[in-house]
Amino acid sequence: VSTPTPTDDSARRGEHFLREIRQQPDVLAALAANDDRIAAIATEIRHRSERPVRMIAHGSSDNAASYGVYAFGLLAGVTAFRDSISLSVYYGAELDVRGSSVLALSQSGRTPDVVDYLERARRRGAFTIAVTNDPGSPLADCADAVLPLGAGTEQAIAATKTYSAQLAALALLAAHTANDGARYHDGLHAQAATLAELLARPRAELTPVIEELAPASRMLVLGRGPEYATARELALKLLETCRLAADALTATDLAHGPVAALDTEFPVWVITANDASLPIVVEAAQRAHRAGARVIATGPASDAIDAASLRIPLPESPLPLLAPLLSIAPGQLVASGLAAAKGLDPDSPGQLAKVTLAR
Amino acid sequence: VSTPTPTDDSARRGEHFLREIRQQPDVLAALAANDDRIAAIATEIRHRSERPVRMIAHGSSDNAASYGVYAFGLLAGVTAFRDSISLSVYYGAELDVRGSSVLALSQSGRTPDVVDYLERARRRGAFTIAVTNDPGSPLADCADAVLPLGAGTEQAIAATKTYSAQLAALALLAAHTANDGARYHDGLHAQAATLAELLARPRAELTPVIEELAPASRMLVLGRGPEYATARELALKLLETCRLAADALTATDLAHGPVAALDTEFPVWVITANDASLPIVVEAAQRAHRAGARVIATGPASDAIDAASLRIPLPESPLPLLAPLLSIAPGQLVASGLAAAKGLDPDSPGQLAKVTLAR
Repeated sequence: VSTPTPTDDSARRGEHFLREIRQQPDVLAALAANDDRIAAIATEIRHRSERPVRMIAHGSSDNAASYGVYAFGLLAGVTAFRDSISLSVYYGAELDVRGSSVLALSQSGRTPDVVDYLERARRRGAFTIAVTNDPGSPLADCADAVLPLGAGTEQAIAATKTYSAQLAALALLAAHTANDGARYHDGLHAQAATLAELLARPRAELTPVIEELAPASRMLVLGRGPEYATARELALKLLETCRLAADALTATDLAHGPVAALDTEFPVWVITANDASLPIVVEAAQRAHRAGARVIATGPASDAIDAASLRIPLPESPLPLLAPLLSIAPGQLVASGLAAAKGLDPDSPGQLAKVTLAR
Repeated sequence: VSTPTPTDDSARRGEHFLREIRQQPDVLAALAANDDRIAAIATEIRHRSERPVRMIAHGSSDNAASYGVYAFGLLAGVTAFRDSISLSVYYGAELDVRGSSVLALSQSGRTPDVVDYLERARRRGAFTIAVTNDPGSPLADCADAVLPLGAGTEQAIAATKTYSAQLAALALLAAHTANDGARYHDGLHAQAATLAELLARPRAELTPVIEELAPASRMLVLGRGPEYATARELALKLLETCRLAADALTATDLAHGPVAALDTEFPVWVITANDASLPIVVEAAQRAHRAGARVIATGPASDAIDAASLRIPLPESPLPLLAPLLSIAPGQLVASGLAAAKGLDPDSPGQLAKVTLAR
């Protein structure tokens, strides 16, 4: 990996991104401190739990919503799904959302079609919740309830700490919906401490992964269950900060076509968890390896991935649903290191603005 | 584009794939002939339309399910969503599916976790429907109702005619759910005729697109609304048959990160429709163009994409929801031509089996 000659500019490149990655333990603890407010919102969701929870978001927030599907499903037995925004906002579909809960996730609270969807849903009788880092935003203004992420200003354009805060918010919301909030509140504090230890580990352990990915122009990231969100978020981070065409897939979807594209120049990063999905994740990694791909495995079950040539092990999470709060961290740090190695600036990637006003 | 020296083998390469693309008009007409059976299933769905329709699938079938979200939403005002399979099958989440409809889409009817999901959902009181090309399959055996695709044996591993048959089945199901089946039945016949004309067009018009994509290793495909399914299916075809790392995005999601990765070696294919999403699709194409990407536009509104350097125009569809039956065709033909140019065999891409038994 060639590092560009340091200049004043390159020294500052990505400093916000790295600092915000390191702020995540504090952000999780701050979010946990908002427990009463989250519990109150969860009470409203519980009253409506016969109807599915609709989640809307773009980008990293939409990746967090993937996690919400599992948080609500596993903890509360409540169906949550990522709804189509365009169906309501652009095509004017008249869906019956009365008595359902709508979670709009947006760091800035200013993404136009997310705001538009929420306004319509509220008029039609849904209970609307803005999950945002800006409680003064238009999204917060038009919602029945606001769940502030409290992550502090996120200066890097590529989101990190607000993504983690969204996961934590969804976990606590789902846990309180299931009347199991206290355990997850404590678990979140414990997870924040574990994350702080993890972020303090010597970064040299990431160097082989950064060197492996430096020449790649494309890759796949596999995850299943709650870790599918991690796979999606890692793929987006590598795409936007490192210009690496990374695509996220569930372990099973790999076999339904994409495996045919793999070869030695198409690395596969496998996110592992010690849970019921592990056997299919192991199998998918073997399939990728047989196709010639170099396999990187991260997470508490990375040792189970025989096909992996590189591993970043992670500690087990006492509450398995909180594992994604740890498992995204190596990916964020690799994105930071790989961007630096490529001379790119994750604080300000080309063509991107922090507040995405794009329709 | 260099064509490999023809041998007996290379002459036969991809012949099933191309033949099955050309069979699609007949497949659509055959599906329309099954209208009574589809209407009967739709009656059951209508009785349950207060609850969302859950769709489960992998690969191309899952891409068809993306279309189902819009078909049910736009025609019948019914919420349909792509449910998580792993949540129920691997993690044992106890979701309340009583009184809801479940559509399982699988060409072979033998994908294990799809069968498993359907069995569980039926035991829990859902009305379960197998949409499959094999009415004797395990999936059909365990469903309350079977909607046979009737597409005839699909010999190429990369799906084409069964994908189109699934779109048509979803359109008719949604139309009958809305008591508007007759119009869509006739529309499907008309669309089959238009598709036959389209497939008879000189293939030379595709050559510039094939030449543009030949050196690419990665690309994006954009579509929104009902055409998001087309974007997903085209990306999967190019990935599995041409080893091109193609990723599908909604037009809005492009601005939420991925645009930062674009450059002159990262083509963007834009699927257009003359509908409410056109302005945002035009804007996204401009954004991709500004980032240096070469833009290809297909569909009836391809002329509206000023940023495009290549266009494949398509006729307008009298029933806009049936447009995706036409808009996937140029993509399938480009995949066929590009695979041939690369010496690859879409009938049998590496590492893939026609019946995916992978968990």
